[in-house]
Amino acid sequence: MPALQNATDTPLLRSDADGVVTLTLNRPQQFNPLSEAMLDALQRELDALSCDDEVRCVVLAGAGKVFCAGHDLREMRSQPRLGYYQDLFARCSRVMQGIQTLPVPVIARVHGIATAAGCQLVASCDLAIAAETTRFAVSGINVGLFCSTPAVALSRNVSPKRAFDMLVTARFIDAATAADWGLINETVPEAELDEAVARKTAEILSKSPVAVRYGKAMFYRQRQMALNDAYAYAGDVMARNMMEEDACEGIDAFFEKRPARWKR
Amino acid sequence: MPALQNATDTPLLRSDADGVVTLTLNRPQQFNPLSEAMLDALQRELDALSCDDEVRCVVLAGAGKVFCAGHDLREMRSQPRLGYYQDLFARCSRVMQGIQTLPVPVIARVHGIATAAGCQLVASCDLAIAAETTRFAVSGINVGLFCSTPAVALSRNVSPKRAFDMLVTARFIDAATAADWGLINETVPEAELDEAVARKTAEILSKSPVAVRYGKAMFYRQRQMALNDAYAYAGDVMARNMMEEDACEGIDAFFEKRPARWKR
Amino acid sequence: MPALQNATDTPLLRSDADGVVTLTLNRPQQFNPLSEAMLDALQRELDALSCDDEVRCVVLAGAGKVFCAGHDLREMRSQPRLGYYQDLFARCSRVMQGIQTLPVPVIARVHGIATAAGCQLVASCDLAIAAETTRFAVSGINVGLFCSTPAVALSRNVSPKRAFDMLVTARFIDAATAADWGLINETVPEAELDEAVARKTAEILSKSPVAVRYGKAMFYRQRQMALNDAYAYAGDVMARNMMEEDACEGIDAFFEKRPARWKR
Repeated sequence: MPALQNATDTPLLRSDADGVVTLTLNRPQQFNPLSEAMLDALQRELDALSCDDEVRCVVLAGAGKVFCAGHDLREMRSQPRLGYYQDLFARCSRVMQGIQTLPVPVIARVHGIATAAGCQLVASCDLAIAAETTRFAVSGINVGLFCSTPAVALSRNVSPKRAFDMLVTARFIDAATAADWGLINETVPEAELDEAVARKTAEILSKSPVAVRYGKAMFYRQRQMALNDAYAYAGDVMARNMMEEDACEGIDAFFEKRPARWKR
Repeated sequence: MPALQNATDTPLLRSDADGVVTLTLNRPQQFNPLSEAMLDALQRELDALSCDDEVRCVVLAGAGKVFCAGHDLREMRSQPRLGYYQDLFARCSRVMQGIQTLPVPVIARVHGIATAAGCQLVASCDLAIAAETTRFAVSGINVGLFCSTPAVALSRNVSPKRAFDMLVTARFIDAATAADWGLINETVPEAELDEAVARKTAEILSKSPVAVRYGKAMFYRQRQMALNDAYAYAGDVMARNMMEEDACEGIDAFFEKRPARWKR
Repeated sequence: MPALQNATDTPLLRSDADGVVTLTLNRPQQFNPLSEAMLDALQRELDALSCDDEVRCVVLAGAGKVFCAGHDLREMRSQPRLGYYQDLFARCSRVMQGIQTLPVPVIARVHGIATAAGCQLVASCDLAIAAETTRFAVSGINVGLFCSTPAVALSRNVSPKRAFDMLVTARFIDAATAADWGLINETVPEAELDEAVARKTAEILSKSPVAVRYGKAMFYRQRQMALNDAYAYAGDVMARNMMEEDACEGIDAFFEKRPARWKR
């Protein structure tokens, strides 16, 4: 989608480099809200990426001072109809789930603040690296709107009392607390954020593409199953992964003490 | 229930102040056991509170030196019949689940010890603030009775190896460990416990009552659903919350940089 | 099975002492891989132990420098058939689940490294104590084989972003991190590892055997249920536990301030 790249009037920027696609929320003046236009742009990119065999890893970032401050309240307030809201949250939830159903890992590159649906975006990514000055909250309750859909993602990452506390008080937690609670993987000084994200994408790019795709698809699906079903499913996935050229090559390379050459 | 208030011979004290209801387990000499009378009193209060639109937040506390030491073993031992025990644990489980189905947040105010079903009470509350000298255990195994129903609540708050260790060894953990493991939200010096609880209830009272009620009901229900169902449900709840006057007022107040005036 | 004991050519050693059975993976030169022979030996022991009323606790250990480095890649590579791999992972998954369905607690005694299915073994045990120099990884992705079945156990012990990071990058975590994340219970200096394990088995042996068996069977089963069902089930289990002689004796001993005498 070359038309999207480097355009300054589009809500979402996309840049491609060696299999890493960076999607940048691009409404910095408004703190990158998940407006209808932003959600549509995200969904379009997720749809395109999900059938793109060249992409190996996605980074989700925000332009300007913050990562994402959640929904576009002004837009929401201007359309006071139940059907509109139901549709809006359904579309937003589809984007969040689309991050997990994307065949490749998605890394949140977080800085400034990640609040409400912005915090939900972080929770929905596979991995998250944040500047150590980042602050996180699910603050809808402050405007009389409990962060219900963010709660779905948050409560699947953070233990219940911590999630409930954040949701009912709108309290901010700092990046160190977010890492301690498992909401993010890692904090770094803001000046080293791009370097840390690049290190993580390089690690992922050094692995077998086909094996990473087997793994990501399996990971979230098995988590929702009973233990017995999860094992039956994961065992079958792993057997099929073992039949791939990359597994044969990887194991042979290991025994021959040489780097593996992955099939592209 | 004015008859219950300030009565010294009732197992459970209730005090009301500005929408905050404090329920105090009141058998301090026996370490506030969950006797039949105590469970009945708790159930009666939960039933009354669940249809009381004035209540905004509940605090659960224990009179005397400890929060709660679990079931009343003497009473249990005196009724050695399977049907009696099945009924007793069913009633106790109903109380524990009633804390979660109550429409408003419940905060455990914990001090001294919280053991067996007392620890389960803490795990069952939405939030828990403990004196830093508090100790927690699920110690039934010491008397030949594995804490099976407490395990239900504990294992939904604490990771499996930690929960199993507590259950099978009856080990005590201190308040700092309980906070680190997510069993409680916060520890404070015992002298500051009431102040910390009051700070938390004040925070909750500053939010929209209707939004808090939407959120609490949604939170536990969505946790038991598959991701897709959870999003469908939470999206609908959030759309309905958005149609409430409080959400309109909250968002308008936010844009007008003034405090919101919540509907009571 | 006296023939197995002290044999040096068997893949799995068994030693019995006062109700504690220690199973030692015994292919130290190959880092104790979960070969077909090893899986068969483990399954045989689990089957035997599950009907042995004398056993009270099981310790799982590794001979030599490491606990377990996962599957036997050489053996796997030599049988490139989908059906073979499906069967292999099904057998491995049966062993892992057999640890949880065993009626008595299983403690992993971990040292050196625990990687891939070796890390899964640790995750599958009820309790884990590790030398503080131990390192943990799920490193299949390095050979083009995503650790799908290990992910089942890992993601039920460790929060999702941490588990996914380990799976997709093959990163090692040290024992302190593993304890912080809930993958293991405790770290000790390697010289004190046997002492720490002995302390834990002694604690378990001091409890009522029948109560421990009630508890272990209940613990994992209730975790997979909705809250309401979990309480109905756990309440019934606890009522039946209360009808056992040991619970009566335990409670009487508690009131009489004397040690309980458990039925064997």
